[in-house]
Amino acid sequence: MQQLIDHITRHSSIKPEKLEPIADFFEVRTFKKKEPLLLEGQRCHEKFFVAKGCVHLYYLRRNGVEQTIDFALENWWTSDFMAFQQGGVAQFSIRAVETTEALVLSAARQQELLAALPELHEYFHLMFQRAYAASQMRIRKTYELSKEDLYQDFSRNYPAFMQRVPQYLLASFLGFTPEYLSEIRKKSVS
Amino acid sequence: MQQLIDHITRHSSIKPEKLEPIADFFEVRTFKKKEPLLLEGQRCHEKFFVAKGCVHLYYLRRNGVEQTIDFALENWWTSDFMAFQQGGVAQFSIRAVETTEALVLSAARQQELLAALPELHEYFHLMFQRAYAASQMRIRKTYELSKEDLYQDFSRNYPAFMQRVPQYLLASFLGFTPEYLSEIRKKSVS
Repeated sequence: MQQLIDHITRHSSIKPEKLEPIADFFEVRTFKKKEPLLLEGQRCHEKFFVAKGCVHLYYLRRNGVEQTIDFALENWWTSDFMAFQQGGVAQFSIRAVETTEALVLSAARQQELLAALPELHEYFHLMFQRAYAASQMRIRKTYELSKEDLYQDFSRNYPAFMQRVPQYLLASFLGFTPEYLSEIRKKSVS
Repeated sequence: MQQLIDHITRHSSIKPEKLEPIADFFEVRTFKKKEPLLLEGQRCHEKFFVAKGCVHLYYLRRNGVEQTIDFALENWWTSDFMAFQQGGVAQFSIRAVETTEALVLSAARQQELLAALPELHEYFHLMFQRAYAASQMRIRKTYELSKEDLYQDFSRNYPAFMQRVPQYLLASFLGFTPEYLSEIRKKSVS
């Protein structure tokens, strides 16, 4: 919990002492490796702050293959935000890539939390602006870069992450086959 | 200005009477068709609320071709949000597709506005959550759909928009050549 409080005070003007009561609104949950946080097709009424660990967001392609579209590491929020916002059915699943500790905030509890502490909108404003800004850059990169350049760009920007995530998930995220990814890796090592 | 006030009251719990002073923080600017709102390479210190008209967000590919990655119509906010947040250099340009009236908020004025009326964070929290949620769905669709299905999906979801935007911009956005787009259109009419 302290980790989230630190994160909020770092990214907003809210004083730490105002944040003491927020623990009551969250549920701390530990997910084993490969355990789901959210399942496609189920009602999505929670968002997750990753305190420790790593999760991936994916959907099931028509051919039954899981397509990873995003990851979340420590200090990132994740959910199917369209479904979360509308209280609708999730179009994505989220699963722990490694043992993950998450602070879980339900939509109902969030409403109460924001009513009690409206200053938190400032923090969420910045978090979503940042996430949206990153997605603008990501969309630019998917137009602009070849698959190989996309891999190089990713390696440069997130070296620690590359070590943590299984190759088949990284390949899925980058839109590669695992074989193609292994080819590129060999090339860039040599 | 009334349009923005209506939009804020529709998407937050802020009372309209609290919003009267906000006009002072904005600049109303009219852009002629094809006039730029923001240029790649320049410092980005403004965000734009489209009151009337339509703009597109694009960048210059290495081969000199303009790649459109997004549009904004009435009641949408647009900017290069990474650059806006960091006060950095824009990696995108924004240009009016048709005569456009925009409410312009500079980063400096936004800071003053939010200090005077912190309740506005609630509105921006929701706006960015919505924009980020839409970009999650968009990323899913670019993985999932063929180019032709992407076009059909777009036509179904934004029919009015399809009528307003020049074909070559739509083709660029969808990652088509104009020739390919014209082929698909013929096919879907017949």
